Amino acid sequence: MIKKTREKVSPSVIRRLPRYRRRLTELLDKGVERISSKELSQITGFTASQIRQDLNNFGGFGQQGYGYNVQDLYEEVGRILGLNKEYDVILVGFGNLGQAVANYTYFNKIGFKICGIFDVSPDIIGKRVNDIEVMDYDGLDAYLAVHSIDIGIIATDKNSAQAVADKLSKGKVRGIWNFASVDLIVPEAVVLENVHLSDSLYTLAYYINQNG
Amino acid sequence: MIKKTREKVSPSVIRRLPRYRRRLTELLDKGVERISSKELSQITGFTASQIRQDLNNFGGFGQQGYGYNVQDLYEEVGRILGLNKEYDVILVGFGNLGQAVANYTYFNKIGFKICGIFDVSPDIIGKRVNDIEVMDYDGLDAYLAVHSIDIGIIATDKNSAQAVADKLSKGKVRGIWNFASVDLIVPEAVVLENVHLSDSLYTLAYYINQNG
Repeated sequence: MIKKTREKVSPSVIRRLPRYRRRLTELLDKGVERISSKELSQITGFTASQIRQDLNNFGGFGQQGYGYNVQDLYEEVGRILGLNKEYDVILVGFGNLGQAVANYTYFNKIGFKICGIFDVSPDIIGKRVNDIEVMDYDGLDAYLAVHSIDIGIIATDKNSAQAVADKLSKGKVRGIWNFASVDLIVPEAVVLENVHLSDSLYTLAYYINQNG
Repeated sequence: MIKKTREKVSPSVIRRLPRYRRRLTELLDKGVERISSKELSQITGFTASQIRQDLNNFGGFGQQGYGYNVQDLYEEVGRILGLNKEYDVILVGFGNLGQAVANYTYFNKIGFKICGIFDVSPDIIGKRVNDIEVMDYDGLDAYLAVHSIDIGIIATDKNSAQAVADKLSKGKVRGIWNFASVDLIVPEAVVLENVHLSDSLYTLAYYINQNG
């Protein structure tokens, strides 16, 4: 069914897919088996024609006048996003944010498995979290030389983040999930995805003031 | 200088402003005083014409052939975003994520002041963080009845989040910063800004697989 995933799909379409998935999860939880694109439009807030266009990027799933099978669509969207696979993940930086990420077991449950945690602080190195011991950041290069890691999470302060990204890239991670508030430079072979919390907070501040 | 903030500016322009601000912070740190839109373009990755258009939404700041004064532009962008003001913030949910947010003192430093923290767990209620005692969630309505709160942060699990959002909205917060992985419904008077971490992770997974 997935015909065109190898062609470039617009980033805004890709960014909408997790939202579809979230809504489909809710429908599955409620036991809904089938949904029209009109109903899907009502719960996602996207227009029915946008939904059809979005899904057509990947070959299209609905049947005219019949709608979508919720379970099938859920699985297809997951497959498009790559959620049917497992990913080996390491986490660099085990302060509050790093700990929050490491303890968010949901990621583990859906296939993003934290295999290693690294920090520079002697107080933190050696601590254990869910059976993983926090390792010395100095050993990161050596670790990456013998482990094939899919995703490196950066949860350090912004001043250390680029150096960490360089090590991760050199160590052949496929993607970096960056929580540090800095725009990193990575080689083309590495996918960079940022969570800039302060950008989100600033946007909130802007709209609060617009609201009067 | 800010002429048009009351008019609707496109959300994509607003979302770019924090990035300008991040880059301008870096320039200030380096002691750069003046920058051309061409140079600004190189470091932001936006085109010079997009930058001019973006900033013209707010009255325009540069001078032809002269560029931008970095300090002035930094302050203006901050003012547009509302970062020259202070915000009273409460946090609901004091698990790992809530603790990470509460301990991220940078937010406090730039004017987002956490005044109250709420949780349901008897083990957590009564704990102290930066001089704030974690309060019983049962007291949230009463708290909001006597305190004027700008922003409520939701760091609960997804099943509790809508109920929290309802209480916050009833308690007249101006904005909600939602970390729960659920699409909340809030009254029009309340600004909702989401940090959907799993959406970001799924997007990363997608692009990793596209990269081969």
